[in-house]
Amino acid sequence: MADPKFFDKQRALSLKEIAEIAGAALHSEADAGYMIEDVAALDEAGALDFSFLDNVKYKEQFKNTQAGACVIHPDQKDLAPDGLKLLLSPNPYKSYALVAQAFYPEHKPAGSISEHACIHPDAIIGEGCVIEAGAIIKEGVVLGEGCWIQENTVLGVSAQLGDFVRVGGNSTLSHCHIGSYSKIYPGVRIGQDGFGFAMDLKGHVKVPQLGRVIIEEHVEIGANTTIDRGAGPDTIIGQGTWIDNLVQIGHNVKMGRGCVMVAQSGISGSTVVGDFVVIGGQVGIAGHLTIGSGARIAAKSGIMRDVGAGEEQMGYPAIPLKQYMKQVALLKRLIKKDKGVN
Amino acid sequence: MADPKFFDKQRALSLKEIAEIAGAALHSEADAGYMIEDVAALDEAGALDFSFLDNVKYKEQFKNTQAGACVIHPDQKDLAPDGLKLLLSPNPYKSYALVAQAFYPEHKPAGSISEHACIHPDAIIGEGCVIEAGAIIKEGVVLGEGCWIQENTVLGVSAQLGDFVRVGGNSTLSHCHIGSYSKIYPGVRIGQDGFGFAMDLKGHVKVPQLGRVIIEEHVEIGANTTIDRGAGPDTIIGQGTWIDNLVQIGHNVKMGRGCVMVAQSGISGSTVVGDFVVIGGQVGIAGHLTIGSGARIAAKSGIMRDVGAGEEQMGYPAIPLKQYMKQVALLKRLIKKDKGVN
Amino acid sequence: MADPKFFDKQRALSLKEIAEIAGAALHSEADAGYMIEDVAALDEAGALDFSFLDNVKYKEQFKNTQAGACVIHPDQKDLAPDGLKLLLSPNPYKSYALVAQAFYPEHKPAGSISEHACIHPDAIIGEGCVIEAGAIIKEGVVLGEGCWIQENTVLGVSAQLGDFVRVGGNSTLSHCHIGSYSKIYPGVRIGQDGFGFAMDLKGHVKVPQLGRVIIEEHVEIGANTTIDRGAGPDTIIGQGTWIDNLVQIGHNVKMGRGCVMVAQSGISGSTVVGDFVVIGGQVGIAGHLTIGSGARIAAKSGIMRDVGAGEEQMGYPAIPLKQYMKQVALLKRLIKKDKGVN
Repeated sequence: MADPKFFDKQRALSLKEIAEIAGAALHSEADAGYMIEDVAALDEAGALDFSFLDNVKYKEQFKNTQAGACVIHPDQKDLAPDGLKLLLSPNPYKSYALVAQAFYPEHKPAGSISEHACIHPDAIIGEGCVIEAGAIIKEGVVLGEGCWIQENTVLGVSAQLGDFVRVGGNSTLSHCHIGSYSKIYPGVRIGQDGFGFAMDLKGHVKVPQLGRVIIEEHVEIGANTTIDRGAGPDTIIGQGTWIDNLVQIGHNVKMGRGCVMVAQSGISGSTVVGDFVVIGGQVGIAGHLTIGSGARIAAKSGIMRDVGAGEEQMGYPAIPLKQYMKQVALLKRLIKKDKGVN
Repeated sequence: MADPKFFDKQRALSLKEIAEIAGAALHSEADAGYMIEDVAALDEAGALDFSFLDNVKYKEQFKNTQAGACVIHPDQKDLAPDGLKLLLSPNPYKSYALVAQAFYPEHKPAGSISEHACIHPDAIIGEGCVIEAGAIIKEGVVLGEGCWIQENTVLGVSAQLGDFVRVGGNSTLSHCHIGSYSKIYPGVRIGQDGFGFAMDLKGHVKVPQLGRVIIEEHVEIGANTTIDRGAGPDTIIGQGTWIDNLVQIGHNVKMGRGCVMVAQSGISGSTVVGDFVVIGGQVGIAGHLTIGSGARIAAKSGIMRDVGAGEEQMGYPAIPLKQYMKQVALLKRLIKKDKGVN
Repeated sequence: MADPKFFDKQRALSLKEIAEIAGAALHSEADAGYMIEDVAALDEAGALDFSFLDNVKYKEQFKNTQAGACVIHPDQKDLAPDGLKLLLSPNPYKSYALVAQAFYPEHKPAGSISEHACIHPDAIIGEGCVIEAGAIIKEGVVLGEGCWIQENTVLGVSAQLGDFVRVGGNSTLSHCHIGSYSKIYPGVRIGQDGFGFAMDLKGHVKVPQLGRVIIEEHVEIGANTTIDRGAGPDTIIGQGTWIDNLVQIGHNVKMGRGCVMVAQSGISGSTVVGDFVVIGGQVGIAGHLTIGSGARIAAKSGIMRDVGAGEEQMGYPAIPLKQYMKQVALLKRLIKKDKGVN
């Protein structure tokens, strides 16, 4: 059970209610009235808990779970232990997510402006905003309805936020537009001038960075991530793209919609990334490239050339995933045969 | 000599006192009364300074040092120049550390709460805590005895800290328990919800992250490191584990005791790391893996499979260290022979 | 055109004035009086805009640009479309940077100390400093003339800053000297004690870190970068070196003058880097090495040995760039021929 010091649980739900929330089908209508009180992992769930099977790696846990009910893919229902009530869904993890959200809706304090925040009189603050202690809102900032600006965060001159934007603590935003429903985690830096300069033996010469950062709607930006503003064009993060912690986005980068970018990866300046691209952890993508929509880049890859739409790549420099796997296998065999004369 | 603007040096110590502090043996009892005033590196030390030899790379500096006394491993005493007073220790670097701590104990200001801190009336603040200007302590927070919360740091609702915990400036902690004597460096983010969501073309769906971060006792967490809270289970960092700067720890990760994790490395969600594991800089470890106790992962490795206890690995994907070294040597020979027809 | 919410443009300039600012030659004296109102990228520029061609990748954009005038290298003037006014420069990007600076000089507010800053009475604050809300300036800090300390930044006990230093928001500096004209971006951590300890099964033993961080003049340090103070010697960043975001610099590292270090790279403790070294993104350099002046390290390389002056290296472990390219080509051929018997 989630620690009540940190999380507020809502009322119990019947499996019928849960099926509706989950967009899932009850495997047996007889279970419709069964009451569920909480969500839990397979190995921790009890008779009043709802769980899920998504990653086959946890198949054994599923076979032995004590959960009252589970959501699974229809193909896997034969693995279910006797007595386990089932919901069937083409996307069990999404179904579980929706149910968990119903039990634990995000807690946002009621609209209030801390007396310890520092807000310029010219800033425009929408209805129902929460502004916490130590937040600093500069001249010309615009906040839409229901924004939540957490402690010690700085919104620089003229930053423009849509509705229901949440900005975590100790962040620094400037020269940016942030779309509605986007969520910025603690320690994020957005809008500082990028690494643009002319190298010169007498001293590098800064190129003024005259663009902005445009974050579209429903974007998430992980803790301590940095996104530089454009040099002239803007840096753009497309709608619904989710970025993890400690990521670097260089100036003029344009990311499409629905991308996923895992922790500690980075994209150099002026690269264009399509829609629904998945970028693994610690990936590096060089500047001035094009990554096609639907491409998938394995963790730790170094991308030095354009990647076509839908391609899977891995390696350093990255090559098509299948070729990389062949290379790994080949090297393994060569080492085995090798007599080691160096 | 350490810059007195930044460091306060204590009184001179005799070599006898130093040997006791260091857990080391005096090579010659005749030196027991020799007075030492400071610690210094081999190449900067003078007659009143105490130094050490640990890394053989610095052997030549040792042979030429002007230091008054040095701690070394007994096996290396023959390298000592004439007249250098010696302490012998099986772990000279540890011995040196203890002596340096005696000359330069960590400076903590006397217990005091800044009038510029912002502390919720329901927070519980132990005896002798120091809370600096701009710190924000939210409802339900508990601080044990002698904690030191530095400037502009935010402790979110209900964060629980043990005794003598130090949290550096501009950090953000929430949904966490921090064990006694642990030290959190500036800019650290602990307890934000992890990168957990169901991917969906209509928009990724957040999975509520219902666990906590549990940091055990005597842990160190480096500057700008990020540790996400668990999804249901907790994220756990075991006793005495030391983590460097800019590290990423994903949700549900469990690290054992006494591990060392060097800068810019990352562990993906749900991976379990044993005790006394050493992880080099810029290493990436995939999710849902098990890393056995005593394993050693070379810098920049990409771990994609479980690693057995005590194994040494390197590479991308990582393989046993000896195999990787063979691979490096083999490729070197192949290139040399290669006619380069591409 | 740059968004006027965020940027203030200066008056129009004649091409003659621009040529002087740019250190460039007018290709045709007849153009001297032509008035330019702004700078813009090749594909966005109009008749009153000034642009540049630097990277040949943008040659086609250059041929089709609608810009009024462009600065280019003399060798490329034959690519220019009819009617485009030309300035010729041996370093067109530097010339463009100087012109863009003239149109958009860096905006610094007039000298003022926020009433919401927290400044120790013993701190010394030079003429014309700007100290923003939430900044905390501790005992013994010295700021030269015209420094700009942004919101919620902490300058720890005795930090010494030269003239015209800018420190971005939410940064934490301690145990350091910062040279004049240097620019620290938001979220930077400078001067915390480095990852120095003696490993021990009973608990790692901290080695007191008794050095400082010395940042020389005209240095830039990117957002969320971390620079640990020295263990005894100092950590030093040489004059005019520019460091990008999310970089890690370990204790005792010494970097020379005019180096460039791209995002997410890291240097381990005690490594010495010469002058004008270029280090790509996500590079890792092991500790206790020497990197010669003018060396160039390709992105994502792992440096495990000394690198000679002027050498180019790539790979993991890194080898001379040409050898690495041969290795990549060789592996490609081997995979093609391989029958895949694993």
